[in-house]
Amino acid sequence: MKVLITGGAGFVGARLARTLLARGTLAGHAIDSLVLADHAAAPADLQADACVQARIGPLLAQCDGLRDEAFDAVFHLASAVSGECEADFELGLRSNLDSTRALLDALRHRAERGAAPTRLVFSSSVAVFGPDPAVPLPAIVADDTLPAPQTSYGTHKLICEHLVADYTRKGYLDGRAARLMTVTVRPGRPNGAASSFFSGIIREPLAGQEAVLPVAADVMHPVSSPQRTVEGLIAVYEASREAFVGRTALNLPALNVTVQQMLDALEAVAGPHVRARVRPQRDERIAGIVANWPRAASAKRAAALGLRAEANFEDIIRQYIADSAATPGALKGLQT
Amino acid sequence: MKVLITGGAGFVGARLARTLLARGTLAGHAIDSLVLADHAAAPADLQADACVQARIGPLLAQCDGLRDEAFDAVFHLASAVSGECEADFELGLRSNLDSTRALLDALRHRAERGAAPTRLVFSSSVAVFGPDPAVPLPAIVADDTLPAPQTSYGTHKLICEHLVADYTRKGYLDGRAARLMTVTVRPGRPNGAASSFFSGIIREPLAGQEAVLPVAADVMHPVSSPQRTVEGLIAVYEASREAFVGRTALNLPALNVTVQQMLDALEAVAGPHVRARVRPQRDERIAGIVANWPRAASAKRAAALGLRAEANFEDIIRQYIADSAATPGALKGLQT
Repeated sequence: MKVLITGGAGFVGARLARTLLARGTLAGHAIDSLVLADHAAAPADLQADACVQARIGPLLAQCDGLRDEAFDAVFHLASAVSGECEADFELGLRSNLDSTRALLDALRHRAERGAAPTRLVFSSSVAVFGPDPAVPLPAIVADDTLPAPQTSYGTHKLICEHLVADYTRKGYLDGRAARLMTVTVRPGRPNGAASSFFSGIIREPLAGQEAVLPVAADVMHPVSSPQRTVEGLIAVYEASREAFVGRTALNLPALNVTVQQMLDALEAVAGPHVRARVRPQRDERIAGIVANWPRAASAKRAAALGLRAEANFEDIIRQYIADSAATPGALKGLQT
Repeated sequence: MKVLITGGAGFVGARLARTLLARGTLAGHAIDSLVLADHAAAPADLQADACVQARIGPLLAQCDGLRDEAFDAVFHLASAVSGECEADFELGLRSNLDSTRALLDALRHRAERGAAPTRLVFSSSVAVFGPDPAVPLPAIVADDTLPAPQTSYGTHKLICEHLVADYTRKGYLDGRAARLMTVTVRPGRPNGAASSFFSGIIREPLAGQEAVLPVAADVMHPVSSPQRTVEGLIAVYEASREAFVGRTALNLPALNVTVQQMLDALEAVAGPHVRARVRPQRDERIAGIVANWPRAASAKRAAALGLRAEANFEDIIRQYIADSAATPGALKGLQT
């Protein structure tokens, strides 16, 4: 089978690609070809795989060509991130809204000419939940909590959920939308996102660097490891159409964890000298943004597909340590 | 002030135009100019008004020109109807999604160059509510009921609600979205819409013609008169920004009425000989569609703006009779 991953060179996309190549199959079919569409070049290990074809350039410019190309599976992960969309409104419209529309229309074009509806998984986000300033969020955001996005990123994700649902209802696609939780621990450097510290307070101390904690330790947040996130996307792909009934969007499982629990887990896994590198220094801007985010999420529909969150944050840290073994400097803070 | 009504030649749009001209003011400002953008020609009485400028053609083609034209108020009513969008998917995308986006971008373009955000009322619809096949609708759909549209029309209305909200949050607009209930009694001829009979069972008997009732008499549905609908749109325009808090969409008030109550009202207002022209003849297709529609709606946020539904269906029939006095044949069924 032939698989397309948009955003296939990104953090989640590349991990999904590696996981699919390691499995060799998807929904019981052998994967012959894996196309990674991304504005950036794919990591070298993926480019070296004979099954992989990397296509570099904006997704929007690639979509017309997709009208004449048959894919058995599409994972649509390409997206500008939240902070970028707030800073550049047109970038958000183009990257997150117009690109998705163009991709869906390319797949529709094929279905209108008699092809079977392509199965597509769209990566939505917990950012679809507000909060509505008029109505406080429930303690736990569920699959059927009323979305009231307060960022362009969350707005476009929600809009695309509904486009995927409508194209699916019309028979142009077999679409599903999975709302990703905050994926942590992300490798690499801090980025400008307000959520950056959720990875930074683990990643930097493990690398021997100081990390600033800009919020109170009792802040709670729904997180997921990269691997559970990828497993969730695959399970959503492999689920039957019937499992989705009429709705196409579901929450992926979350570990609802406080910052204090994250720090305790860091100490348990890596020792008090690593934990000591986290320095509390309140940042009112970031604390204010985070105060409006969901503190917890449930995932009843994903649970019905057999998906579970990690049992504890220690496991998430151990996953990051195992993943980072080959990265120079990433774990030098572990040495005492 | 200068006012734009998209869909200004349509049933609701033309009535809104007449109401605004009769008032002469909007939010305390004198109306100097009223532009009606529509693919059809405006009614003759409106064309004859010195304040009115009719612009005929697709809205999508008109939007580029709007980038350099200042409006104080926009009522965005232009829309392909539900049945059209189900029959022609691209028409729905173009007329209801792309046109709204182009209109919002024209207004954003002005704001980005320093103009004050234009106040805009978007006519959304009770069709944003599903039902989600997986989750039955609540007995009454409220402002904050989870929308799960099951038509392209409802999907596009919901998407545009969220675009209006996000452009407003960013300061490009002062946007509000009002969800219209089923507007009845519509004049003219039956159309292909499944909801057509809600007007037909009143309009046809009053004109001396037989009307077919395709559903059971215990079907309940949220309706509103044309005049209350227009008053709702104006009140939503005139409300303060603060009245909307972060959310921009609200339900307009509905009279939740059964078909039996509609027929009883027809008999009370027009007599048993008129009522007798309604012939029950079940249509499984229409009954099936209607069975999935909301049976009732509440409008708490609109009530806070002082808006109320009609007290009874008799008043809606009397409004139609008063409106139709000058229409040849419309009321000939009243004669005994």
